[in-house]
Amino acid sequence: MIGISDIWEAKKRIGGYVHETPLIGSESISRIAGDFVFFKCENLQKTGSFKTRGAFNRILSLTDEERARGVCCYSSGNHAQAVCYAAKALGIDAYVYMPETATPSKVEACRSYGGHITQHGKTGADVFPMAKAFAEENGIFYVDPVEDPYIMAGQGTAGLEIMETLPDADTVYVQVGGGGLMSGVSTAVKSLSPQTKVIGVEPETMNCMSASLAAGKITKIERRYSMADGLAGDAPGPLAFAAVSKYVDEVITVSDEEIARATLLLMQRTKMVVEPSGACALAGLLSGKAPQGKKNVCMISGGNVNNAVLAELLAKKA
Amino acid sequence: MIGISDIWEAKKRIGGYVHETPLIGSESISRIAGDFVFFKCENLQKTGSFKTRGAFNRILSLTDEERARGVCCYSSGNHAQAVCYAAKALGIDAYVYMPETATPSKVEACRSYGGHITQHGKTGADVFPMAKAFAEENGIFYVDPVEDPYIMAGQGTAGLEIMETLPDADTVYVQVGGGGLMSGVSTAVKSLSPQTKVIGVEPETMNCMSASLAAGKITKIERRYSMADGLAGDAPGPLAFAAVSKYVDEVITVSDEEIARATLLLMQRTKMVVEPSGACALAGLLSGKAPQGKKNVCMISGGNVNNAVLAELLAKKA
Repeated sequence: MIGISDIWEAKKRIGGYVHETPLIGSESISRIAGDFVFFKCENLQKTGSFKTRGAFNRILSLTDEERARGVCCYSSGNHAQAVCYAAKALGIDAYVYMPETATPSKVEACRSYGGHITQHGKTGADVFPMAKAFAEENGIFYVDPVEDPYIMAGQGTAGLEIMETLPDADTVYVQVGGGGLMSGVSTAVKSLSPQTKVIGVEPETMNCMSASLAAGKITKIERRYSMADGLAGDAPGPLAFAAVSKYVDEVITVSDEEIARATLLLMQRTKMVVEPSGACALAGLLSGKAPQGKKNVCMISGGNVNNAVLAELLAKKA
Repeated sequence: MIGISDIWEAKKRIGGYVHETPLIGSESISRIAGDFVFFKCENLQKTGSFKTRGAFNRILSLTDEERARGVCCYSSGNHAQAVCYAAKALGIDAYVYMPETATPSKVEACRSYGGHITQHGKTGADVFPMAKAFAEENGIFYVDPVEDPYIMAGQGTAGLEIMETLPDADTVYVQVGGGGLMSGVSTAVKSLSPQTKVIGVEPETMNCMSASLAAGKITKIERRYSMADGLAGDAPGPLAFAAVSKYVDEVITVSDEEIARATLLLMQRTKMVVEPSGACALAGLLSGKAPQGKKNVCMISGGNVNNAVLAELLAKKA
């Protein structure tokens, strides 16, 4: 399991490559929540999501030989963009496997970062084995999106920055998908401030982490649709489950309606574009299902959202 | 005509009440433009637009007696929100006249700031005389949205901040509606850096400033529809015309299609919500109709946009 020193090292390693994103307060959302609300703006991170932190920390930690052979990953979205961007910045090749159903703009973004893209099948399950096989056959490093201590420590730098900027934060809300962000951020927050509450937030239709916590062991769920597509997962991996079990006070779930409301609120009140997954933490705070502090931080994990998805959301609440 | 000292004084006066908004660079929009592009983010200003600067500077400069009687204005949008917000912060009454066609969310925002709202008629022309008459009959100060040296000096503080942050800016693009923002910003920029180019940008269907400059005198145009509704105007007032004539190098026009493209680009690439009027300056830069510098600053004047308008824009380009 990673510790705070891994996160400090990651911060030093990736400092010149990623943004220290702003932690901004919102007067009007604070009024709605009834207490101070701050947002950690990873939608303003390079490539539009926190994934860039982990990708740089992982790739920068490879040996020169490994780097020379390039890196490989599978992803339909933010992780792919982050790996391609980091690889380009470091002058190495990125081989990315994406399902054919991946959003064209995300595929295009990967291509614009110079990634070698292979599209196949409909879902991650179709294309994931291809990525692993390609990596193995060619001796190329496979960059896991979650289950890797360097990835987790990289994502944790976002938590480190929160506590450096607002050391007396009472509660930190973080969305949970695979659990990489949650693992890193909760490790940073609890190591620096044990009394700060850390709350995970999942879509109720993709609740594999809360189901696993309730069962006391890794539990596979039947995943259903959520507009928070970035948080898809059937079961947490062992590293993420261990970190969340140790450091997270509670994992709550929110409905798509709550996620939609939070996404629109962020657009209207903070003037920021946020992907539905990115608004999940705020949805959790506003749901009132977990203890609220005087000073609450909500993670905005990313801002890469389809025009069509946003249009539909906005049209409903016009 | 105002000078730089009025703007320095305004900055001191309003400093505790408004945000010093960020000047942010965008790697990907710089790539599209071919040179560095920075954005002055008045969409992140309190109430979501630059108007808050002028409103505070105007109201803070009133005598105690004037303030005690409250202030009055007419506006269908950002100016009304700014006046109500400033009045509330200073503990005085704001009497606001809005057309019945004003966007409900903007009326609601004014009400939430404690404004006394009167809605009447379909257009500004219907309700403007009511506001003036009410102010006169009750001895209440009427806060003009543009033609007031305190308003212009307040808006100019945005220009001052640009030059303090990026003193070697080559070109500054600013949208032109009534011309209050353009007057203040161009005064600040040219006073501090005469070699910096200042370019005004108007919708081609609301081109009263460029028509007036071309004619060498204030010229009334027949205003047509533009999605950049915040920039509506039939003719510039004498103060704005004088300042723009003196300080602005060129005023160019852009089509609604160019404005739509810039609005979407800002959402996708900077993850910021911008109203179409607010994206006009970037549309001007990208049009290539004016000399581009190495370091270009585009004003984002505001971010208060209807869900329905955004939904339509996004759906078209989904």
